[in-house]
Amino acid sequence: MSSDPLVIFTPSGKRGHFPVGTPILTAARQLGVDLDSVCGGRGICSKCQIAPSFGDFPKHGVTVSETALSAWNAVEERYDRVRGLKQGRRLGCQATVQGDVVVDVPPESQVHRQVVRKAASARPITMDPATRLLLVEVQEPDMHEPSGDLERVQDALREQWGIEHVHAGLPVLRKLQPALRKGDWKVSLALHTPANTEQTQILDVWPGFHEGGLYGLAIDLGSTTIAAHLCDLVTGEVLASSGLMNPQIRFGEDLMSRVSYVMMNPGGDVEMTNAVREAINTLAGEIAAEARVDPALIMETVVVCNPVMHHLLLGIDPVELGQAPFALATSGSLALPARDLALDALNAEAQVYLLPCIAGHVGADAAAVALSEAPDKSEDLVLIVDVGTNAEILLGDRTRVLACSSPTGPAFEGAQISSGQRAAPGAIERVEIDPDTKEPRFRVIGSDLWSDQPGFAEATAATGVTGICGSGIIEAVAEMRMAGLLDASGLIGSAAQTGTARAEPEGRTHAYLLHDGTADGGPRITVTQGDIRAIQLAKSALYAGARLLMDQLEVDTVDRVVLAGAFGAHISPKHAMVLGMIPDAPLDKVTSAGNAAGHGARIALCNRAARTQIEQTVGRIHKVETAVEPRFQEHFVAANAIPHATDPFPELAKVATLPAVAFGASGGSDGGRRRRRRS
Amino acid sequence: MSSDPLVIFTPSGKRGHFPVGTPILTAARQLGVDLDSVCGGRGICSKCQIAPSFGDFPKHGVTVSETALSAWNAVEERYDRVRGLKQGRRLGCQATVQGDVVVDVPPESQVHRQVVRKAASARPITMDPATRLLLVEVQEPDMHEPSGDLERVQDALREQWGIEHVHAGLPVLRKLQPALRKGDWKVSLALHTPANTEQTQILDVWPGFHEGGLYGLAIDLGSTTIAAHLCDLVTGEVLASSGLMNPQIRFGEDLMSRVSYVMMNPGGDVEMTNAVREAINTLAGEIAAEARVDPALIMETVVVCNPVMHHLLLGIDPVELGQAPFALATSGSLALPARDLALDALNAEAQVYLLPCIAGHVGADAAAVALSEAPDKSEDLVLIVDVGTNAEILLGDRTRVLACSSPTGPAFEGAQISSGQRAAPGAIERVEIDPDTKEPRFRVIGSDLWSDQPGFAEATAATGVTGICGSGIIEAVAEMRMAGLLDASGLIGSAAQTGTARAEPEGRTHAYLLHDGTADGGPRITVTQGDIRAIQLAKSALYAGARLLMDQLEVDTVDRVVLAGAFGAHISPKHAMVLGMIPDAPLDKVTSAGNAAGHGARIALCNRAARTQIEQTVGRIHKVETAVEPRFQEHFVAANAIPHATDPFPELAKVATLPAVAFGASGGSDGGRRRRRRS
Repeated sequence: MSSDPLVIFTPSGKRGHFPVGTPILTAARQLGVDLDSVCGGRGICSKCQIAPSFGDFPKHGVTVSETALSAWNAVEERYDRVRGLKQGRRLGCQATVQGDVVVDVPPESQVHRQVVRKAASARPITMDPATRLLLVEVQEPDMHEPSGDLERVQDALREQWGIEHVHAGLPVLRKLQPALRKGDWKVSLALHTPANTEQTQILDVWPGFHEGGLYGLAIDLGSTTIAAHLCDLVTGEVLASSGLMNPQIRFGEDLMSRVSYVMMNPGGDVEMTNAVREAINTLAGEIAAEARVDPALIMETVVVCNPVMHHLLLGIDPVELGQAPFALATSGSLALPARDLALDALNAEAQVYLLPCIAGHVGADAAAVALSEAPDKSEDLVLIVDVGTNAEILLGDRTRVLACSSPTGPAFEGAQISSGQRAAPGAIERVEIDPDTKEPRFRVIGSDLWSDQPGFAEATAATGVTGICGSGIIEAVAEMRMAGLLDASGLIGSAAQTGTARAEPEGRTHAYLLHDGTADGGPRITVTQGDIRAIQLAKSALYAGARLLMDQLEVDTVDRVVLAGAFGAHISPKHAMVLGMIPDAPLDKVTSAGNAAGHGARIALCNRAARTQIEQTVGRIHKVETAVEPRFQEHFVAANAIPHATDPFPELAKVATLPAVAFGASGGSDGGRRRRRRS
Repeated sequence: MSSDPLVIFTPSGKRGHFPVGTPILTAARQLGVDLDSVCGGRGICSKCQIAPSFGDFPKHGVTVSETALSAWNAVEERYDRVRGLKQGRRLGCQATVQGDVVVDVPPESQVHRQVVRKAASARPITMDPATRLLLVEVQEPDMHEPSGDLERVQDALREQWGIEHVHAGLPVLRKLQPALRKGDWKVSLALHTPANTEQTQILDVWPGFHEGGLYGLAIDLGSTTIAAHLCDLVTGEVLASSGLMNPQIRFGEDLMSRVSYVMMNPGGDVEMTNAVREAINTLAGEIAAEARVDPALIMETVVVCNPVMHHLLLGIDPVELGQAPFALATSGSLALPARDLALDALNAEAQVYLLPCIAGHVGADAAAVALSEAPDKSEDLVLIVDVGTNAEILLGDRTRVLACSSPTGPAFEGAQISSGQRAAPGAIERVEIDPDTKEPRFRVIGSDLWSDQPGFAEATAATGVTGICGSGIIEAVAEMRMAGLLDASGLIGSAAQTGTARAEPEGRTHAYLLHDGTADGGPRITVTQGDIRAIQLAKSALYAGARLLMDQLEVDTVDRVVLAGAFGAHISPKHAMVLGMIPDAPLDKVTSAGNAAGHGARIALCNRAARTQIEQTVGRIHKVETAVEPRFQEHFVAANAIPHATDPFPELAKVATLPAVAFGASGGSDGGRRRRRRS
């Protein structure tokens, strides 16, 4: 047995004997302990902080004396003076072994630290980003043994970090020589190692130790909204989240109308490509400003989106996606320089990673949902619906996963709704209707008060009550159905039929008055028959897609439902089920995953292995093409009723009573349509 | 022994038995016979033409009957009708084995065909370019088994050509879908596989079979001139060669004055970078037009240049190259997209390869000379001087190679010479002076007549006699020395001293009148004392560099001398030796390699392995830094005399007599300098 002191690391439990004088960082490296270091042991970066434990450790069979580590040295003293070391912490590169010792590596000192995500169901992310920061000390040039500065940086990376196959593009070559000389031959490098390769690219270089951090952007590029998380690439923390409207909306609200725009307008794809790239640049600038981060330190972005957005972002004509067989130009993941997408707001050498697409109608956003929610690892049968202008639907468990997309249209996002608006302060987001009085109350974004609570008017004075957002319209329609204002076919009753003057005539049909703000100069907010029809079309498409996947698996029920999507977090499971958006399931088995696509993008940003994993998983997902599946139409028609014409909803019946009202004269509501058809 | 027919290929001698009905192309592939095919055996490309031989072949032990191959089929008949098949030729993919047969693969049907180069000493180039053309037949999309078009192209390349790891950039992704559909799922691909990798990039795609060919540009980017060869990437043939002045000349004639320009003018490097890139675009356009080739079919360019040109082309500030230790930003070879250098005249995905630099003063042009002239493979000791504004000098044999560069300045290119001009019609390029009469005669570019021959005036009427080019001034000065018009110290004698009125006074010194064109409105062309001094400085630098390398090898003579450089071909070995540009050597051992740097670029363009080879060779070349070597100054001073103050020239003495004239009063010619020094 060695007479050298024993060093035991916690929490890993790794242990070994090391000669007196060995730095703790060296011991950790030799044992393969996950202890971070950016400066390579030069006492600059402070990433290798450790906490020695003293006293008796019967469990480990050692007693640690107060002198088990070397005394503080000048480097630690200076560091503590300038930046402050937490009580009990040491710099692992400076403290050396003097006797048996137990050393704890706190989470923030681990390279592969775990990042806990907000969603309760979500597994933590293990940090292993493709882009990382390292400091190297570079040999000075010697004219008698000439070699380039880059070649000596490559040598330093090989010798000091064991990194081979390093290259650099022109933007870095241009900065390298001044940085080396200004940093006195020490430079910090942002290194990017894409998944599945052993090639490493230097993305940027700074003289000396770079204090500014490295950042990444996880972007969920939807048809209607573009949402982004700005992440710290070291800690994995989300520093800011923001979103904006997809400016392509002016070319068409849904995907197919945008594809049509290209067909009708040669060059229309270029317009839309420029619009979305500009929007991403704007968003990057805004989100960086919000987090007080230099956007030039955004080294990487991961984008998830549906196939049409995917092609339009890349500048590929999406016309093939508008017609069978819906061929993608490329379905694989893509790694490319951000400048190829004119994302000039980011670092000059920033990299873009696009997740793979599953099929011509099932995009990288669905792949991101699969990465985030991992249906392929689920023990029970899970239905995941990512609600947006185009819904992505995944069904499966560890044995098999199916996927499809369904063209719900933008109604769920408040578009095509008479009083609809995007989710912003002043928008109605929650609705309740008293089944007896038929009187509504509601809440608006920006206030926690219900509209019938004291102080509501004051609390909302600044924003007013301006419209209904996506979650608000879902609740309103479901509440109308539960209050007997709406029958199963989707017809709104008249004042006479429902007993409330809020059921106002509107042309041949009726509308329900949710809020009359005209006295204060605000709008009258009603839910019209047209709004009900728009919601019915959207929810039928969603339900029909889910049902089609269930057909394939030959099941009539699912074990649990996950609602995902930018506003999935805001949808009430009960209201969604009253509407028949999703199949019947026990209410406690319907959960929200928030923006699962965005989370998937964040996972891919923080963990290289996740990229490889999803690339493999996508190949195993079975795709179902709704557009050509005859049963989709059948399911769509049957799902028009609220909640459904034929499928039973026993679980829903336990928690909600749907009055058996019927407002149409026989065929009454269809009469109008028949007439139009004849004309 | 197999009862299947025997197929014997010539010239390879490879043989094997194949079942009746096997296409010759298939047999060739199975035996590893070098038989080309672009279309993969679809009877489209005609690259696999072979010539069957009939009759008795005792050497091979077979008798070939007239029916040894299948009869012409419809594909061959159509091909012959439309494009014509040479007598005796068959398409290897169509003709099938019917009996024992001897099949000749003509040179033009070999993939790795050899290209013979013009220079007598040069070894042939074996074609194996990084960029090649292949046709694939791609599976149509199936929405039930969705995959991207690119992924099915990748499948086709794997299955039909055994090529893995294929990727494509956005310009190709944008063109892929329409090309596949227009070509009815057959497309031609330009594939680029850089040296040392297994990664292949699709550079371009065309529907069906691409008839237009693929081209490459080999560029020798000199301080004064930019020379380019346009090469057919299939045959290796040079289709056009052209050159233009380096527009950076307006920022400084030699390298150090350009570096100074950057030091004095912030942003000056950007100006020079833009200037040289624009010039290359212009040159590419001109050379493509000359060869009647679409410049968008130039898929690749190889550039060789000195380190300062290298950095300025890449957009890297060259200031470090102007001061010890002369550190390059990068010394390795570089492979990058042409668009990163704004070479927009080429294909959108064209690739650039820059050869490695040897040292801060010895560039990729010297590496290219090493590739072309292969001193590392020489059995005898060879001195290679690449004459330009900056001379690259290599000395060595198979045991060891040394390299240095020497700042000769642009005098050898006709700059800094009173009547100097670039090599263009009207420029004096050859000079003879009668040692008795001291009368000159000369030849100008554009005419084969000497100036004293009948018809000279008529032949040169269009161009006139406009000045002296680089090779002309070398001959003029050497001839003046041999005619006794110039003494060993470089002084031009007076009319009285030389006995000819052509020795005209000019200030304190004299000039020799070569041609008086004033009667015809042309210039008076003289060689002035200043011109002599400029040539002395240039030749001293060249000689001193060579001598320094000889010191390192501890030799006083070399076995042979190779003159390289854009005008190396035009320098007369005898005149070069009279001048003392090069060390004494038997005249028949002084040869010209023409533009060896440009040839090296062409080799790297046509043969991937050559890139790997030169990258390795460069690492083994020993670099000598002239700028800090004290002996360089000594050699430089001693080399000022014509041919030399101290070194003997016994071989020169055998072929030329140098009159022992001396025109200076003691110290006369130096008196002027001393006066200037004092003032």
